[in-house]
Amino acid sequence: MRNDFKSWAKAHQSLIETSLVTLLPTKELLPERLHDAMRFSVLGGGKRIRPLLAFAAGELSEADEERVTIAGVAVELIHAYSLVHDDLPCMDDDILRRGKPTCHIEYNEATALLVGDSLQSLSFQLLAEYHLADTPKIQLNMIKLLAQAAGSRGMAGGQAFDLESVGKTLNLPELEFMHIHKTGALIRAAVMIGACCGNNMSDVQLKSLDHFTRHIGLAFQVVDDVLDTEATTATLGKTAGKDADNNKPTYVSILGVKKAHELAEQLRLDAYQELEIFGEKAARLRQLTDYIIQRDF
Amino acid sequence: MRNDFKSWAKAHQSLIETSLVTLLPTKELLPERLHDAMRFSVLGGGKRIRPLLAFAAGELSEADEERVTIAGVAVELIHAYSLVHDDLPCMDDDILRRGKPTCHIEYNEATALLVGDSLQSLSFQLLAEYHLADTPKIQLNMIKLLAQAAGSRGMAGGQAFDLESVGKTLNLPELEFMHIHKTGALIRAAVMIGACCGNNMSDVQLKSLDHFTRHIGLAFQVVDDVLDTEATTATLGKTAGKDADNNKPTYVSILGVKKAHELAEQLRLDAYQELEIFGEKAARLRQLTDYIIQRDF
Repeated sequence: MRNDFKSWAKAHQSLIETSLVTLLPTKELLPERLHDAMRFSVLGGGKRIRPLLAFAAGELSEADEERVTIAGVAVELIHAYSLVHDDLPCMDDDILRRGKPTCHIEYNEATALLVGDSLQSLSFQLLAEYHLADTPKIQLNMIKLLAQAAGSRGMAGGQAFDLESVGKTLNLPELEFMHIHKTGALIRAAVMIGACCGNNMSDVQLKSLDHFTRHIGLAFQVVDDVLDTEATTATLGKTAGKDADNNKPTYVSILGVKKAHELAEQLRLDAYQELEIFGEKAARLRQLTDYIIQRDF
Repeated sequence: MRNDFKSWAKAHQSLIETSLVTLLPTKELLPERLHDAMRFSVLGGGKRIRPLLAFAAGELSEADEERVTIAGVAVELIHAYSLVHDDLPCMDDDILRRGKPTCHIEYNEATALLVGDSLQSLSFQLLAEYHLADTPKIQLNMIKLLAQAAGSRGMAGGQAFDLESVGKTLNLPELEFMHIHKTGALIRAAVMIGACCGNNMSDVQLKSLDHFTRHIGLAFQVVDDVLDTEATTATLGKTAGKDADNNKPTYVSILGVKKAHELAEQLRLDAYQELEIFGEKAARLRQLTDYIIQRDF
């Protein structure tokens, strides 16, 4: 089963990669340098966890894989834009991402700014352009879901809250609030949008799925904080120990490493609980939950 | 007729202002500082020319005014985000906008970055959330139109081309290419999206409307370049003479002031020509064309 998951993940990661290669504007199109920088920032790296979550959620609603591929690409483009903007000097000021120079180091700051802006537009363009759901009305709802997840009450809002918290002491609920927005919102969107590509779900099912995303979103961040403490820059492909250096509150700084591990395990069990009503159809989501919590990079 | 236009414009500018006040997240919502900065950057200024174009185009297709209001707000949010990012130190490095400090001066660079990012998300959220067209399929097309206009093959692409052209000698076709993307794309989107809120148009009508937007988009930029040369910072509400200082190619630097005025007049006549098939229904679009070319701020 574990090997089976690995080959499923690998196959779907390459499906996303191939689709990104096709859907991003080619380097030959004007403005060439911008398109080159967009491809540099998105292609050839990344675990593609959000698209994998979309695929796994699509299995719950028996969604067509081609639809989920576009939806997964759209979510990944939002994630990629956020990384490019996050790495800018006025934000995290980072020079290394996925083992390569960050976009503003390889090109320049103005280009990195426009790369992020253009990736966000492209994401919504794809969600509007392709046939992704049984009705155009569902598809409009998918766009609304992603826009809310990306905006000031979602990911961007979480980043703003994060900026304001540097040097402050946050308590656990405040830290949770920050991460539910910063990381959790886009993970939630990936799952819900993936599910929207297929058959309509009942309200009870949607509610369980929503709760599930909350648990894995938090688990993802807890594990990220542990990795930031324990792993090396070489393993991570990005600068390790940044959060401690920046005096940012993390699950590790508040709970310590041991309790952070315990929290991750508890969140895994809570996530499993929410998947019960889906039975065997949720097998991939269970495996992804394990993968998110046991990953070492 | 002139007075009639003034009062129409004023009434519709205030409709847009009121809607922006309502549709932007309130300052009381977390993260408060981000929402405060979003409102600071969008409210209380701006000629709202793009929403006015949307209203005027909506008259061609007998569109419901409430629909066009939301569509106009969505386009204006994209415009507002582009100004916030344009003013950043890595782009135009400007400290004054609409007679007020720019967002990164009033708040800080990181906040200005997130303000722009969040305004873009909000724009697409609104286009997906409200009932704006006779069918959800048309509405998906409106989202696609705006996303293309904003992205790397539209506005953001024009800005990238602009950055690369600093210090270079552009010829007239290259300058035109840049502005068709940088300014023209969003003006085109405003008109086409406004029209989409109402009855379906014939292909011939849509083609004329599309050509019309090309002429006024260029005219807008030609006049902008003349104003940048002739007007004062106080009149403009933004720093005058920036383009010449930055050694940027403009219509004035290539053609001189006199020929730039003549070009604007020619574009006005070309724009009028395209509106002929709409007869009296295009009265507002004709007035707006005059306004764009005769404005002195």
